[in-house]
Amino acid sequence: MNVVTTVDPRDGRRRDTELTETGDGRLASIVALAAQSAAWLDALGRSGRADLLHAIADAIESSRADLAAVAESETGLSRSRLDVELTRTALQFRMFADVLRDGGYLEAAIDHAAQTAIGPAPDVRRMLVPIGPVAVFGASNFPFAFSVPGGDTASALAAGCPVVVKAHPSHPLTSQAAAAAIATAVRAAGGPEEVVAIVHGQRAGLALVRHRLVRAAALTGSIGAARAIQAAIDERDDPIPFYAELSSTNPIVILPAAAAATDQIADGLFSSFTGSGGQLCTKPGLAFIPSGPAGDRLAEALRQRVVAADGVVLLNERIRDAFNDGRAALERAGARLLARPEPGSTTGFSVVPTLLEVDVSGLTAELAEECFGPLMIIVRYDGASDLVPAVAAVPPSLTGSIHATDQDDRATVRRLADTLAGRAGRIVFNGYPTGVRVSWAQHHGGPWPSTNSLHTSVGATSIRRFLRPLAWQDAPEWVLPAELRDDFQEIPRRVDGRPR
Amino acid sequence: MNVVTTVDPRDGRRRDTELTETGDGRLASIVALAAQSAAWLDALGRSGRADLLHAIADAIESSRADLAAVAESETGLSRSRLDVELTRTALQFRMFADVLRDGGYLEAAIDHAAQTAIGPAPDVRRMLVPIGPVAVFGASNFPFAFSVPGGDTASALAAGCPVVVKAHPSHPLTSQAAAAAIATAVRAAGGPEEVVAIVHGQRAGLALVRHRLVRAAALTGSIGAARAIQAAIDERDDPIPFYAELSSTNPIVILPAAAAATDQIADGLFSSFTGSGGQLCTKPGLAFIPSGPAGDRLAEALRQRVVAADGVVLLNERIRDAFNDGRAALERAGARLLARPEPGSTTGFSVVPTLLEVDVSGLTAELAEECFGPLMIIVRYDGASDLVPAVAAVPPSLTGSIHATDQDDRATVRRLADTLAGRAGRIVFNGYPTGVRVSWAQHHGGPWPSTNSLHTSVGATSIRRFLRPLAWQDAPEWVLPAELRDDFQEIPRRVDGRPR
Repeated sequence: MNVVTTVDPRDGRRRDTELTETGDGRLASIVALAAQSAAWLDALGRSGRADLLHAIADAIESSRADLAAVAESETGLSRSRLDVELTRTALQFRMFADVLRDGGYLEAAIDHAAQTAIGPAPDVRRMLVPIGPVAVFGASNFPFAFSVPGGDTASALAAGCPVVVKAHPSHPLTSQAAAAAIATAVRAAGGPEEVVAIVHGQRAGLALVRHRLVRAAALTGSIGAARAIQAAIDERDDPIPFYAELSSTNPIVILPAAAAATDQIADGLFSSFTGSGGQLCTKPGLAFIPSGPAGDRLAEALRQRVVAADGVVLLNERIRDAFNDGRAALERAGARLLARPEPGSTTGFSVVPTLLEVDVSGLTAELAEECFGPLMIIVRYDGASDLVPAVAAVPPSLTGSIHATDQDDRATVRRLADTLAGRAGRIVFNGYPTGVRVSWAQHHGGPWPSTNSLHTSVGATSIRRFLRPLAWQDAPEWVLPAELRDDFQEIPRRVDGRPR
Repeated sequence: MNVVTTVDPRDGRRRDTELTETGDGRLASIVALAAQSAAWLDALGRSGRADLLHAIADAIESSRADLAAVAESETGLSRSRLDVELTRTALQFRMFADVLRDGGYLEAAIDHAAQTAIGPAPDVRRMLVPIGPVAVFGASNFPFAFSVPGGDTASALAAGCPVVVKAHPSHPLTSQAAAAAIATAVRAAGGPEEVVAIVHGQRAGLALVRHRLVRAAALTGSIGAARAIQAAIDERDDPIPFYAELSSTNPIVILPAAAAATDQIADGLFSSFTGSGGQLCTKPGLAFIPSGPAGDRLAEALRQRVVAADGVVLLNERIRDAFNDGRAALERAGARLLARPEPGSTTGFSVVPTLLEVDVSGLTAELAEECFGPLMIIVRYDGASDLVPAVAAVPPSLTGSIHATDQDDRATVRRLADTLAGRAGRIVFNGYPTGVRVSWAQHHGGPWPSTNSLHTSVGATSIRRFLRPLAWQDAPEWVLPAELRDDFQEIPRRVDGRPR
């Protein structure tokens, strides 16, 4: 058995843990127990699962200090950032408790028997039911909010699906600690711990999605990881849905009048592209800034902030190397170096924030590739006529942002918004794409390569990924789920075509 | 250019049409024009598209006699069956007009800016937007309702997506005639005909799903066709969703007390497995009938109906050959022949209805394979203890049916319903799975191999296959779609987490 190792990115030191990579026999037993635990989740009902999600949120917050400490040592992310992430993680569980109590997510619909143009029609009732055990692949950059206790886990549990998480190799001990916190809450509710299980090791992750009892998979990670997982899924007899949140350049456009707010926008852009070491899937990688004096002042203000910036520790060696390679490739591809402070320290996986610049006419496909880490390219444009086609040529992203004031040209804003609508999952106005709100209306997804599907991994509707429709025809009332009986009034439903 | 041929299945005669298979250049031009027509669909708005769908329904009904005549000569289906299918087809367009006017399908949600546990959160608004041009593969067995003017086309148009249909080679002239009827309505509405286009030929179908402007594909057909289409999609740089409705055995269980209604159930089963030549994806292929006198009487009543039945003309030579091969394979695999009338005529692609029988202990995976056409296997069981595991071993299906009276054991009904819930998309009580109601709550899908996805191809929610979520953050009101503005009241929405 391969021993699982942990690395402190602040000094690069690797040490063995007491964990081993999950072998085939152990994996089969974990998945079997997870599948069995579906009955317990189902028996809890919506209200019981809502209570469970609250208890998990409380358990995570009770372990806040321990969780943040181990995550800090495995990710190099700052304690304050991890603290916010932990709060967000608890918030996600509580939001799905609200989603369960609301019940609209079931999409319950009743069509009573009726006469139609093609004759008498039976009574048909439909709602969504859990899909079964879900494989979740933890992300490197969110050790809580997109990992063991992340949104995929919270939404799958809410749906009634057991979860087996493939722990990210960058934070195995954080993953274990988070699973232990969840297990405390599950045990207190009288449930089987295996309702949220962990496996370690790449081989185990691929075996997981090949396992016949696993009914869906979710990933926040790289295109390479997604391809490997999809290839494993393609070996199955039966296809299963795979929801992958991948790569994103997140263009942000500063229109000429908006660019006059020099310091405000320079602060915002700087924070957005360097926060969390620039290791966010919504990091703005391309900032379109006008030519001319206002744009020059904004570029200079940004340059000053980057020059004065400290180095940052990246999550792992692979990400550090990919960042350095990516930066060098961008410079070779014609991006001018605007700012790159001298590294204060070179221990561990540290790098320095980097600001590059290119004229809009020189913006090639190579320069529009995501570079994960604290790097942004300023793209200098002359006007709408070169700006809009350039934005339209950037690969699709999770987000696209527009800064505009009332003095900016409305027709240009409209054209940019229409362009981004076809190429992004979320359009941000006068703000920054990082800091994704967790709420009912949120959407975190977008056309390929930002995701491989139409579905969102943040917000209330992300639960739908782990549900499937089921219809009952002329069923006796005692067979129907409570939510589909005539006299049930507690959730929003559609009855004979009308919302009730 | 290969000439497209048409075959009358009643006599097997093949003749050339004036159509040719669609070459690469013509395909590219068709898809480009289809993509351009999306702007017109968008400009129509929900209300304009609802009017268009009504106009298409009217145009199809105006061409009823011509459409039914050409379909009869290309499919061998009876005029009365085609007449009902045409009415159903018009109904589908009108239902999606209702869906558009209702507007709930947009899933419009507004979260106003707020303070949250992790700080101030922006205003986020989300709704579904059209995915873009859709490739639809027409089905052999529904020349209208699942072909050019079928539910996939109706739901995609409703969503705002242009459609390019790959016409089924069994009914090219019906496809052209249906497209002409649709084009009449589109022209009258001032639209570009290319909003619903047709291509012919297998090669064109595969090129269609490889085309970069095509954003989704839908098929009602065989697993083989689905594999070929998926392989073509896998050649793309960007994955696109593919919704395939495939193969289904549709087990139906007659519990002991219910079996006493001998003639009623014999009539129902006979109609359900022989109607439309048994060429329905919801045809019951396996009927579980109890051992003992009531079951014997039911089996005998069925046998008498089959022995007295006329031959039926199947849709094409391939389906006829597959039926004969499948029937022979089932007999070789141990199914006893109960009834197979002498063929009255052997012209064209005619076959005779066939009733086979097997003891529950002999029900193998081979016997549970779908045999498309007028064939059903009676499975004789002794009691719940052999019945339930046998039902659980049947491959997942679009439907599962249970006939039970108050005298039948409730615990058995419950166990069967729970078993089928995990293995079917629709559970039918005291009825037959054929004759799928078109309505809001309907679901037509199920676990693999009945479909390759979680999504339904019938009912109001089938529109969701052709929509993707898009979020606007802090957008000025004039940029927002009308449905996401604060004062818009005409559709069901979710505002700050509450249905309004």
